[in-house]
Amino acid sequence: MRTGVWLVGARGSVATTSIVGALALRAGLTGSTGCVTELPAVRGPALPAFADLVFGGHDVVATPLAKRAEALAAAGVLPARLVAALPEELVAVEQELRPAPTGGSQADRAATMVRDLTEFQARHRLARVVVVNVAATEPAPDPHPAHADPAALHAALTGPDEVLPPSSLYAYAAVTAGCSYVDFTPSTGLRLPALTALAAHHRVPYAGHDGKTGETLLKSVLAPMFAMRNLHVRSWSGTNLLGGGDGATLADPAANAAKVRSKQRVLGETLGYLPQGDTRIDYVEDLGDFKTAWDLITFAGFLGTGMRLEFTWHGCDSALAAPLVLDLARLTAAAHAAGRSGPLTELAFFFKDPLGSGTHSLADQWTRLCEFAHLLHRGGTDDPRG
Amino acid sequence: MRTGVWLVGARGSVATTSIVGALALRAGLTGSTGCVTELPAVRGPALPAFADLVFGGHDVVATPLAKRAEALAAAGVLPARLVAALPEELVAVEQELRPAPTGGSQADRAATMVRDLTEFQARHRLARVVVVNVAATEPAPDPHPAHADPAALHAALTGPDEVLPPSSLYAYAAVTAGCSYVDFTPSTGLRLPALTALAAHHRVPYAGHDGKTGETLLKSVLAPMFAMRNLHVRSWSGTNLLGGGDGATLADPAANAAKVRSKQRVLGETLGYLPQGDTRIDYVEDLGDFKTAWDLITFAGFLGTGMRLEFTWHGCDSALAAPLVLDLARLTAAAHAAGRSGPLTELAFFFKDPLGSGTHSLADQWTRLCEFAHLLHRGGTDDPRG
Amino acid sequence: MRTGVWLVGARGSVATTSIVGALALRAGLTGSTGCVTELPAVRGPALPAFADLVFGGHDVVATPLAKRAEALAAAGVLPARLVAALPEELVAVEQELRPAPTGGSQADRAATMVRDLTEFQARHRLARVVVVNVAATEPAPDPHPAHADPAALHAALTGPDEVLPPSSLYAYAAVTAGCSYVDFTPSTGLRLPALTALAAHHRVPYAGHDGKTGETLLKSVLAPMFAMRNLHVRSWSGTNLLGGGDGATLADPAANAAKVRSKQRVLGETLGYLPQGDTRIDYVEDLGDFKTAWDLITFAGFLGTGMRLEFTWHGCDSALAAPLVLDLARLTAAAHAAGRSGPLTELAFFFKDPLGSGTHSLADQWTRLCEFAHLLHRGGTDDPRG
Amino acid sequence: MRTGVWLVGARGSVATTSIVGALALRAGLTGSTGCVTELPAVRGPALPAFADLVFGGHDVVATPLAKRAEALAAAGVLPARLVAALPEELVAVEQELRPAPTGGSQADRAATMVRDLTEFQARHRLARVVVVNVAATEPAPDPHPAHADPAALHAALTGPDEVLPPSSLYAYAAVTAGCSYVDFTPSTGLRLPALTALAAHHRVPYAGHDGKTGETLLKSVLAPMFAMRNLHVRSWSGTNLLGGGDGATLADPAANAAKVRSKQRVLGETLGYLPQGDTRIDYVEDLGDFKTAWDLITFAGFLGTGMRLEFTWHGCDSALAAPLVLDLARLTAAAHAAGRSGPLTELAFFFKDPLGSGTHSLADQWTRLCEFAHLLHRGGTDDPRG
Ligand SMILES: NC(=O)c1ccc[n+]([C@@H]2O[C@H](COP(=O)([O-])OP(=O)(O)OC[C@H]3O[C@@H](n4cnc5c(N)ncnc54)[C@H](O)[C@@H]3O)[C@@H](O)[C@H]2O)c1
Ligand SMILES: NC(=O)c1ccc[n+]([C@@H]2O[C@H](COP(=O)([O-])OP(=O)(O)OC[C@H]3O[C@@H](n4cnc5c(N)ncnc54)[C@H](O)[C@@H]3O)[C@@H](O)[C@H]2O)c1
Ligand SMILES: NC(=O)c1ccc[n+]([C@@H]2O[C@H](COP(=O)([O-])OP(=O)(O)OC[C@H]3O[C@@H](n4cnc5c(N)ncnc54)[C@H](O)[C@@H]3O)[C@@H](O)[C@H]2O)c1
Ligand SMILES: NC(=O)c1ccc[n+]([C@@H]2O[C@H](COP(=O)([O-])OP(=O)(O)OC[C@H]3O[C@@H](n4cnc5c(N)ncnc54)[C@H](O)[C@@H]3O)[C@@H](O)[C@H]2O)c1
Ligand code: NA
Ligand code: NA
Repeated sequence: MRTGVWLVGARGSVATTSIVGALALRAGLTGSTGCVTELPAVRGPALPAFADLVFGGHDVVATPLAKRAEALAAAGVLPARLVAALPEELVAVEQELRPAPTGGSQADRAATMVRDLTEFQARHRLARVVVVNVAATEPAPDPHPAHADPAALHAALTGPDEVLPPSSLYAYAAVTAGCSYVDFTPSTGLRLPALTALAAHHRVPYAGHDGKTGETLLKSVLAPMFAMRNLHVRSWSGTNLLGGGDGATLADPAANAAKVRSKQRVLGETLGYLPQGDTRIDYVEDLGDFKTAWDLITFAGFLGTGMRLEFTWHGCDSALAAPLVLDLARLTAAAHAAGRSGPLTELAFFFKDPLGSGTHSLADQWTRLCEFAHLLHRGGTDDPRG
Repeated sequence: MRTGVWLVGARGSVATTSIVGALALRAGLTGSTGCVTELPAVRGPALPAFADLVFGGHDVVATPLAKRAEALAAAGVLPARLVAALPEELVAVEQELRPAPTGGSQADRAATMVRDLTEFQARHRLARVVVVNVAATEPAPDPHPAHADPAALHAALTGPDEVLPPSSLYAYAAVTAGCSYVDFTPSTGLRLPALTALAAHHRVPYAGHDGKTGETLLKSVLAPMFAMRNLHVRSWSGTNLLGGGDGATLADPAANAAKVRSKQRVLGETLGYLPQGDTRIDYVEDLGDFKTAWDLITFAGFLGTGMRLEFTWHGCDSALAAPLVLDLARLTAAAHAAGRSGPLTELAFFFKDPLGSGTHSLADQWTRLCEFAHLLHRGGTDDPRG
Repeated sequence: MRTGVWLVGARGSVATTSIVGALALRAGLTGSTGCVTELPAVRGPALPAFADLVFGGHDVVATPLAKRAEALAAAGVLPARLVAALPEELVAVEQELRPAPTGGSQADRAATMVRDLTEFQARHRLARVVVVNVAATEPAPDPHPAHADPAALHAALTGPDEVLPPSSLYAYAAVTAGCSYVDFTPSTGLRLPALTALAAHHRVPYAGHDGKTGETLLKSVLAPMFAMRNLHVRSWSGTNLLGGGDGATLADPAANAAKVRSKQRVLGETLGYLPQGDTRIDYVEDLGDFKTAWDLITFAGFLGTGMRLEFTWHGCDSALAAPLVLDLARLTAAAHAAGRSGPLTELAFFFKDPLGSGTHSLADQWTRLCEFAHLLHRGGTDDPRG
Repeated sequence: MRTGVWLVGARGSVATTSIVGALALRAGLTGSTGCVTELPAVRGPALPAFADLVFGGHDVVATPLAKRAEALAAAGVLPARLVAALPEELVAVEQELRPAPTGGSQADRAATMVRDLTEFQARHRLARVVVVNVAATEPAPDPHPAHADPAALHAALTGPDEVLPPSSLYAYAAVTAGCSYVDFTPSTGLRLPALTALAAHHRVPYAGHDGKTGETLLKSVLAPMFAMRNLHVRSWSGTNLLGGGDGATLADPAANAAKVRSKQRVLGETLGYLPQGDTRIDYVEDLGDFKTAWDLITFAGFLGTGMRLEFTWHGCDSALAAPLVLDLARLTAAAHAAGRSGPLTELAFFFKDPLGSGTHSLADQWTRLCEFAHLLHRGGTDDPRG
C-alpha cells in the first residue's frame, strides 16, 4: 500500500524532520522513538509501513531540503550523521517538491495544486495521498459569505478576492483531488462549512487541529489529575519562549492569538471552569528549534489550603512534531483505505484543538486511539456517521 | 449507616486534619474540595455520609487534639476559623482517643487494641469500623518465622519477642475485631502472609499502601504521558524537601528507604524499564507541613533528540492526605458492607505502592475506581475472588 | 530628632505594612529583619530612631487603616497578632491621614497639600518631614511646555489643565513645603526640569525611582556575575505574576510599560549590551500580595557552549518594600539634616531605576550606600555639588 | 614570557577543554568568552599571552587527547570544528603528556614528577611552569605525623607508606621543582603544614581550592544579596545532578563529602549563621558533561513573612572551568614572575573553598582580584607577608 504524504510547508522544520526521520527509519538508521504508531497498542497491518511512504509537497521558499536538514542538524534537532547518510534519498524527495502556486485567481492556484497532487499520485502509483499542513501558522481569516457552501465557494474562487486563507485553499485542493487532509497547525484549514460539505461529498476523511507537542500535552495529563483529585485550580499561567521559524511567525500577534486560543481549550473543558491566568508566546531567537515553556498552577486543596505546581518544559518542537506527522499520515491513510470519511475525531490524542467535542484527557484520548487502531487492524472502522 | 473511623496515629497531622475536616464538612463550614468521593463519578448511596463518620484512635503521644489543630492552623494547614468553630466537637473526639497500648506481650497489647475497638463500636452503635493507619512510618521489620501463618503468629505473640512491627500489630487487632484496615503509610501493616490469611478468615477487606499525594501522584500521570508518546525517559531524579512530623521521621534512613522504594515502583512498572536517577527525601524543618518536590526528567524523542522536563510541587501534605483518608474510610466501609473481603485492589488510585499488580497509570486507576464505586452503588461488588 | 514620614498612598499595601511595622518595632514586638538601616555597616547616630518617626499621609480612598491591616494579615503579609496588639497606635496614625485633595485647579490642590504638610509638621513639632510616594503607579504623562521651568509651571498650575501627573503635584507640594521627597514608584514624581530646579531652589534632597524588591534585585546581582565571569548573556526573559492592588494597576498596559522600562535598565547598563527577551507583568488575582517571577537566562561560555539559568522568586512585595520605605525615610531625613539637597544618587541600592548614571551592580551600590551612611554618621555628607 | 602549564589529570574533561580552547584562541579560531583575564579590569602586560602558554601534564589513563576532544565535541562541550581544525597542535601537546608515575616509593614517584617537570621546562625554554591539579577528586587522606613538617615528610616518603594523597605528592613535586601550584579540585593538594612550609622555603606561590563554576558561584552572589538586604535565610537546600567523569568520581561518598564541604563554607561565612538544608551531589550519567543544580532557598522578610527563591542552573562544567584554568595559570605565573610566594589569597574569586579567611562575596572577591591584577601590571605585588 504505497501511500503519498504531501506536506504543505515542505521545507519547514517539522516537514524536514519528518522526511529525514522517515528516510532514516526506512534505511534502518534510527529507531522509532516518538512514533505512537509503533507502540504495541497501536501498530498493526492496516497502517502503511514507513517504507511505503512517499513524500512530496509545496512550499513558498526554495531552500534545498538537504540544506534545511543540515541547518537542523547544526541546531541539534537531527543527528548530522543521518543527513550525511541520506544524500540521494533527500535528492529524490527534493524532486517531488513544488513551489506554492502564485498568481491568477484562487481557482487557478487550486487547479495547480490539484494537478500537482494528481501527477504525484500517478507518477508513484500511490494507493492514496494524505495532505498534511505543516506550513507557517496564518492569522484567522476575515469571514466571507462564500465560506458557507460549496457552490458559492466554487463561484467566488474564480473572482479577484482572496476568499480562502492558504491553509483552506490547500484543503479545498486536497479534497477536490480525493486526498485526505490533516491540519497540524492552528490555521483554518478545513474548518469552514463549505469545505466540510465538500469533504463529505468527496468522501475523504480529515483530521486536526494543531499538533499537541509541549505545554498543552502536559495540560492534557495535569488538568485531569487535578480534576480526578477534586483539587480546585485557581490560576494557570503559562509562558512559552521559542525561537525557530515557528517562533518568528508567532511573534506576529494575530498568529499568536490563534495558537493561544487552541492552547486554552483543554483547561476549560477538562476542569469545567476556566482558572485565571494567560498563556503567552514570546520569540527568543537564541532558543532555536527548542522551546521552553514555564507554567505556574496555583490550586486549593482540602479546607482551602493553597498549593502550587510549576513546571519547565524544554522540548525540541520539531523532534516532537515530526513523528506525530508520520503517525497521522499512517492513521489517516488507513482510515481512508477503510472507507472512513469526514472528521476523524478519534485522532484527538494528537491535537491541541481537536475536531469534535470529546474529552481533552490524554488518557481518554489514548483509549479512543487504541480502539480506533484496533478496529482498523481488524478490518473496519466505526464511522460514527454510519 | 454510622461508621467508625479508627485512626492509628490519631494525634498526627494527617489524622488531625482528617478529623477537623470531617467535622467542618458535617457542620457545613467548608466544601469538599480534595474529596474524591464527592465527585459525580464516585459519589452515591453506598458510601456513608460525612455526618455518619465517628472518629476514634490510638496514639503514643497525648497532645490534646485541639492543641494539635491550633498548631496546624498556625502553620497554614487549616483555617484557624474552623478550629475555633468546633471546640465541642473536638472535645467529643478527644474522648474517643486511647493511648497506644504498651507493656506486656504483643498478645496483651493486641487484646487491649481489640477491646478499644469493640467498645468503640458498641458505644456508638456503629455498623462497622475502619481502622486507618496514619501513624509515623516504621522501618522495615526483621523477618520472623511466625510471619508465615496465623497459628505460628498467634503462638509467638504471647512470647517475649517483638514479633510484629506496630503497624502489623494494629492490623492484627483490627482483623481480629472484624474491622477493615487501610494502610495509608508505607509500613508493613497487613503485608505478611499470616495476616492476609487472617483477614481472609475473618472476611474483612483491606487496602494500602502509602497515600499518593505529591511527587508520585505526578509520576502517575507524567510517566504514562511519556509512554503513550513513545518518548524514552533517560533519567528521572527527584528531591523531596519536607518538614513536619513526617519529615522528621523520614530523616531516619531506614524509614526513608521504605518510602523511597514505594515511590519508585510507578516508573519501572509504567515505562517497562527503570530510568537512571534517585529519589531523595531531606528534612527541612522550616517547610513545616508543606513539602517541596523537585524532579528533573531527561528524555529522548525522535531521532534521539534530548529534552527535559522539570517540575516543582509545593504541596501541603496533610491537606492532600486528609480527604483521601476520608475517601478511603468511606469506600472501604462500603466494600465491607457489600461483603467484600481481602485486598481492595480497586483502590490503587489512592496509593503509591498499591496492593495487586495492576497499572500505575492514574487515569487507568481512576477508571477502575469509578467502576468499583458504580458497582457499590448498584448494590454489589465485583469481588475478584467472589 | 522627631521626623515626619508622609506617605502618598497611605492606605495602600506598602504604606500600611510600613506603618504597622514601624509601630511594632517601636513597641518592641518584632525584629528588624529586612531593614537595611539596621545592619552594622549602615546604622548609626545620624538616623532618626524608629521611635522618632511620626506617620501621616494622603490617599484617594478612605478604608480605615486598621481594616487594611487586618486584610493584609488575613493574606499572610503581616502577622495578625501585631495588628491586634496595636489598636490605639493605628487609630493615632489614622487621625493623621488626609484625603487626597480634589477639585479646583492644580494650584489649589497643591496649596491644600502644602497646608496638610505644614500643619502636620507643626502639630507634631517635627524637625523635618519626608514625603514618600507609595501611591498606585501612574501612566507616563503627556509632555507639557510648563514642565520646563518653575515660572512656567507656577503659572500653568492655576489654569484649567492637568499640567502635572499626581505624583509630580505631590512632589511640587513637598518641595514647596520644604520637605524632602522619595519616589518609591516608577511614576514621574520629581523627574521634570521644573521640579528639579525647584528642589534645588528650596535646597531639599530627593531620591527615587521604583523600589527594587524582586526580579530586578536578582538582576542586580546576577547580571554582574555574568559580566565578572565574561559569560555572554544571549537572552533574558522574565514573567512576573502578581495579584494585589499593585497587580491590578499594572494590568493597565500604560502603567505596565513604565514598570517594565525601569526593570530593563539594569541589564543593558551592567552587561554593556541588551540581550534578547522581554519582561512581562501579568495580573493573577489569586496570588494576592505575593508575586511569582520566573526568569530564563540563556548564556554562552567558553568556545560558545550554551547554558541556562532559570529562577523562580516567590516574594511578598509589601513585606519586601515596607522596610525599604522606612530605610529611605531615615536616610533621606538624615541627608536633609546634614544639609544635602538635590538627587541622592547614593541611594541607588534601593531602586530599580535610580537617579544618576552610576552602576547597577548591587554590590557596588552597597559600597556607595555604606560610604554615604558612614559620612552621615561622621557628621557630614559628600554633596557632589558641594 | 613563555610559560608552561602542567596539568595533573591532563586527559580529563577540564584539561582537554582548556588545551583545545587555548590552542583555538592562539589560532584565532574562537573568542575569549568565559576568560576573566581578558576583561578590561583584569587584562594587561603582566600576564603571559595565550600564545605563550605551553601545555604538558600527567594522567593515569592513556586515551589520546584528540580522542578525548572528539568525545567532548560529540557531547556538545566543544565545537567539533575546533577539534577538526587543530590536529597537529593536539599531537604536539600529546607528546608533552606523561603517565602518572607508579611503583616504587612515593619519593621515587616524586622524583619522576620533578624530572618530568624539569625536562618540560628545559625542552621548551620556559620562564616558569605552573602546575594545575585538575585530576579526579580524592577522598580526604588519613592524618599522618609526617604531614607536620618538611623534614619528617622527606624521610617518610622514602618508606613503604602512602604518606601523601596523590594531589599532595604532585604539589610536593611542583614545589620541589620550583613550580607554582594551583589546585582546581577540592583535594588536599598543598594544604598540609609540611607542604606550605616547603612552598615558603622554595619561594613559590600557590592557589586553591576547587574551581567555583556552578551552584557555589550563584551562592557567592545570592548569599550577599540576602545579607545586604537583611533578609533572614531559613533554609538553603541544593541538589546537583551531574554526569561525566567528575560525576562518576563524586558518586563515591568520600569524594562527595570533600566537595560538599567546600560548597557549604560560603553560606556560613557570608550570612554569619548556617541555614538549614543540605547540598547533595548525585550522578546521572545521561547528563554527560552538563550539570543541573537546583536550589531552594526559604527566607523571612520584614515581620517574619516567609518567601522563597529557587533556581535551576544548567551548566557545562568543563566549559565553565576551562577558561578559569587558563586565567589561574596566567595570574599565578605573573605573580611568580613578580616575586610573590605563598598563598595567593587574592585569587579567591575563582574558588569554592579559597585559601585565607577573606570574604565569600563574589563582588568583593572581584574587587580584590582587580586590585591584584592592577598591581601586577604596574610591576609589583602587594605580598601580604612581603
Ligand atoms: N513543531 C511543533 O511542535 C508544532 C506543534 C504544533 C503545530 N505546529 C505547527 O506546524 C507548523 C510548522 O512549524 P515549523 O516549526 O515547521 O515552522 P517553519 O517556519 O520552520 O516552517 C513553515 C514552512 O511553511 C512554509 N510556508 C509558509 N507559508 C506557506 C504557504 N502558503 N504554502 C506553503 N508553504 C508555506 C514556510 O516557507 C516554511 O518553510 C506551524 O504552523 C506550527 O505552528 C508545530
Ligand atoms: N501527608 C501525606 O501526604 C502522606 C502521604 C502518604 C503517607 N503518609 C504517611 O502518613 C503517616 C502520618 O503522617 P503525618 O504527617 O500525620 O505524621 P505525624 O508525625 O504528624 O503523625 C504521626 C503520628 O503517629 C503517632 N505514632 C507514632 N507511632 C505510633 C504508634 N506506634 N502507635 C500509634 N501512634 C503512633 C505519632 O505520635 C504521631 O502523632 C506517615 O507514616 C506518613 O508517611 C502521609
Ligand atoms: N511592593 C513592592 O515591592 C513595590 C516595589 C516597587 C514599587 N512599588 C510601588 O509602590 C506603589 C504602591 O504599591 P502597593 O502594593 O502598596 O499598591 P496599592 O494599590 O496597595 O496601594 C496604592 C495606594 O495608592 C492610593 N492612591 C492611588 N492614587 C492616589 C493618589 N492620586 N493620591 C493618593 N493616593 C493614591 C490607592 O488608593 C492605594 O491605597 C506602587 O506604585 C508600586 O508600583 C511597590
Ligand atoms: N568542571 C568543573 O566545573 C569543576 C569545578 C571545580 C572543580 N573541578 C574539579 O576538576 C577535576 C577534574 O574534573 P573533570 O571533569 O575534568 O574530571 P575527569 O574525570 O574528566 O578528569 C579527571 C582526570 O584525572 C585523571 N586522574 C585521576 N587520578 C589521577 C592521578 N592520580 N594522577 C593523574 N591524573 C589522574 C583521570 O584519569 C582523568 O583523566 C575534578 O577534581 C573536579 O572536581 C571541576
Ligand atoms: Na522551578
Ligand atoms: Na524551575
